[in-house]
Amino acid sequence: MNIRIYYEDTDALGIVYHTNYIKYCDRARSELFFESDIDMKSEKGALVIRSINANYMQPAYLGDMLKLGGYISILKKTSVLAKQFITRNGIKIFEMDIRLVYVENGKPAIMPDKYYNLFLKNFKKD
Amino acid sequence: MNIRIYYEDTDALGIVYHTNYIKYCDRARSELFFESDIDMKSEKGALVIRSINANYMQPAYLGDMLKLGGYISILKKTSVLAKQFITRNGIKIFEMDIRLVYVENGKPAIMPDKYYNLFLKNFKKD
Amino acid sequence: MNIRIYYEDTDALGIVYHTNYIKYCDRARSELFFESDIDMKSEKGALVIRSINANYMQPAYLGDMLKLGGYISILKKTSVLAKQFITRNGIKIFEMDIRLVYVENGKPAIMPDKYYNLFLKNFKKD
Amino acid sequence: MNIRIYYEDTDALGIVYHTNYIKYCDRARSELFFESDIDMKSEKGALVIRSINANYMQPAYLGDMLKLGGYISILKKTSVLAKQFITRNGIKIFEMDIRLVYVENGKPAIMPDKYYNLFLKNFKKD
Repeated sequence: MNIRIYYEDTDALGIVYHTNYIKYCDRARSELFFESDIDMKSEKGALVIRSINANYMQPAYLGDMLKLGGYISILKKTSVLAKQFITRNGIKIFEMDIRLVYVENGKPAIMPDKYYNLFLKNFKKD
Repeated sequence: MNIRIYYEDTDALGIVYHTNYIKYCDRARSELFFESDIDMKSEKGALVIRSINANYMQPAYLGDMLKLGGYISILKKTSVLAKQFITRNGIKIFEMDIRLVYVENGKPAIMPDKYYNLFLKNFKKD
Repeated sequence: MNIRIYYEDTDALGIVYHTNYIKYCDRARSELFFESDIDMKSEKGALVIRSINANYMQPAYLGDMLKLGGYISILKKTSVLAKQFITRNGIKIFEMDIRLVYVENGKPAIMPDKYYNLFLKNFKKD
Repeated sequence: MNIRIYYEDTDALGIVYHTNYIKYCDRARSELFFESDIDMKSEKGALVIRSINANYMQPAYLGDMLKLGGYISILKKTSVLAKQFITRNGIKIFEMDIRLVYVENGKPAIMPDKYYNLFLKNFKKD
């Protein structure tokens, strides 16, 4: 998945505002669901973020075309750990680990099979 | 209501990104409701935006302290027209007219009395 | 230009937050420049927004794929009026007129030829 | 520092979008500078984010009033580690460690004395 940097993404330092890289990773995760025709809105529960560990290597700028990559490194029935990264011209500029838990009525629950299978397809042993 | 400009509000031109002024006006409208202890989430319907006419007079910058002002200039049972503006040190830098319609199940509906009364308190004839 | 709706675009009403449609129009304008290899950062001046007139016809939702369209309807040496709109499955859900002025050192200035020519290519008489 | 949750902060799940908590922490750091009358724009360099470790404990909702807290736990001449957290009614709902490096012309540099002294005032041994 490619992401173009627009004015909305930048700040007065002339670089991409730091929380936006984390947004792009969310776009990439959501796109997995959309492309598999999984309607996240129709489920009782939702994937909720528990933790993020992010490293910023290089800034991105207006007009840059970034590439999103990643995979699932831990897959359980109620949660996943995703490893995601962003490259520009093949060079990694950002990486993060994100832990998501499937939650129903405020409590962890077993995720729908189609979620699990989608994650399984994107699973990779570290 | 005062609003401070942070990095998140600015863009690579070094000024506040243009849609953010419209966000600040939304904050000011919402604050009216919160301060009157009106829980917008408990209503069946919601105020939905139909049109915005905005004029940008002067840019705002990182660290600026802006002041929001405004009033209701047209008040009907299902809709309102709000006139909102932003000043910095007493000088107007942005103004907009926004028309909101109360919508239930996708259709215009009569707004709750507490909404109407709140708007009435903030009504001013042009 | 197509734009997918992600969680970041939506709000607690379950629809796209109103200022985001205006952001998408900015993306479409910027994309014109990027695709023509015009580096907006290398110019002394910049296009600054003077006014926006926007109409909201239908809400958009998580996962929607929207299509951006538009053209320049007034073209002067220092300013343009752009007419932009957003459709979903061929139905218009948002439209806006936006007036932009080329500004150098805080004052209107004649825009670079490459800007003017790009706008001219996208000019259409109403 | 208190932060009110508005529609712009929420997403279609009805909760605050996950990157916004990180934005609020940025607001709190910037406010330290603004309240000390330090003009970040006048410096040659800037504080750039290197890493974020964030934990999400509880969601926040439209209308919530959140409280930001935090301190500097590591202070060097070119970088700091800040520990920041967000509470609602005295209960912690979010916490993060953020490492910032002072950068001039793309390289780490010794931060201005007024930056260092401001961080020193907010330093606390873990």
